[in-house]
Amino acid sequence: MNSITILGSGRVGSALATALAEKGVADVVVGVRSPDSVRATWSGPAVTFLDVSAAIGRSDLIVNATPGDTSLERLTALKTELVGKTLVDISNATTRSNDGMPGGLLYPGSSLGERLQAALPRTAVVKTLNTMLFTVMTAPAALSSPPTVFVSGDDSAAKVQVIELLADLGWDAQRIIDLGDIETARGTEALAVLVPSLLKTLGFIPFAISIAR
Amino acid sequence: MNSITILGSGRVGSALATALAEKGVADVVVGVRSPDSVRATWSGPAVTFLDVSAAIGRSDLIVNATPGDTSLERLTALKTELVGKTLVDISNATTRSNDGMPGGLLYPGSSLGERLQAALPRTAVVKTLNTMLFTVMTAPAALSSPPTVFVSGDDSAAKVQVIELLADLGWDAQRIIDLGDIETARGTEALAVLVPSLLKTLGFIPFAISIAR
Repeated sequence: MNSITILGSGRVGSALATALAEKGVADVVVGVRSPDSVRATWSGPAVTFLDVSAAIGRSDLIVNATPGDTSLERLTALKTELVGKTLVDISNATTRSNDGMPGGLLYPGSSLGERLQAALPRTAVVKTLNTMLFTVMTAPAALSSPPTVFVSGDDSAAKVQVIELLADLGWDAQRIIDLGDIETARGTEALAVLVPSLLKTLGFIPFAISIAR
Repeated sequence: MNSITILGSGRVGSALATALAEKGVADVVVGVRSPDSVRATWSGPAVTFLDVSAAIGRSDLIVNATPGDTSLERLTALKTELVGKTLVDISNATTRSNDGMPGGLLYPGSSLGERLQAALPRTAVVKTLNTMLFTVMTAPAALSSPPTVFVSGDDSAAKVQVIELLADLGWDAQRIIDLGDIETARGTEALAVLVPSLLKTLGFIPFAISIAR
């Protein structure tokens, strides 16, 4: 079985690691700054915790689940390790409001996806899964109406790889929309501006921003 | 029957005027700069064309269907006429790309809805219907999955009036999401950034950016 490396063990990274391991999609490696302490408190299925550089070395497919407002700096520092890899960026780069909700866009007129691709020219950056509550990423069928997931990236082969991963996570091929190159990530990242008022109105429930047609 | 005034006779304003008149929702008044020439080429149902000031005088409910990148200037000039009215802003304020598609946001970190409310303090601004192809505004049931429509505004009574209008246009109450005050318009206006890549991918088909839950 192939392996997938997830960078970050916060709420999003942990949920994804758990789902990928439970579904048997891949051997799951989680890259964190303190693997020993994270491993000690982990209660999920079997995954491997390593420091970030070693974790990247284990897989061809790397998922960025670090906080979006820190990702550009963190991943640029890993430029050498990331050469030749597919980087699946599922984060959103927003400022943080006092109430913990996402604030405004960190890169208005651009996007984290584009910034990452520019900083990592020998890595194939694919933006996806950034337009929903994190619980929906790995359980799209749990919603009562079928959700949409968007994909943006310059490298076609990398996008094929990511679309296969989405299918493994339960996404219906009909609901996966390949928007085009990485510049189109600015469209999906902009959707984050809607999220605070949506959560205040609907409550903290699973949702995905989707296309009705 | 009450009357509704629509400012603008472009593609969006004409579609809305036609639907409101055909459905018998209201007497429809269309405010334009050259009523005689617009009237001469109109082939739709019976509506009244007047100059903008006179058109606003006819109704309590005014719909802004002027191009979003010109709306703030145009409507600020009509501040006196708009006192005491409900202004339903259905436009999106984006720069224009060379290919005619929407470009970036004209008011990043804010929104046209907020700018209009600040410029027109004695008018109740309600943002809605700005997250879909214009054909969907008046025919939500034509989509194969049920679309969402969002409402933002500071004045509760004005929002009730607008939600009734949405119901008259065929919107299911379950799919109308009142996001809160006018500041929440920045969330729905940001969705415009997704539209160019979406239309390039899907083609020019009816769609609405919606919430799956």
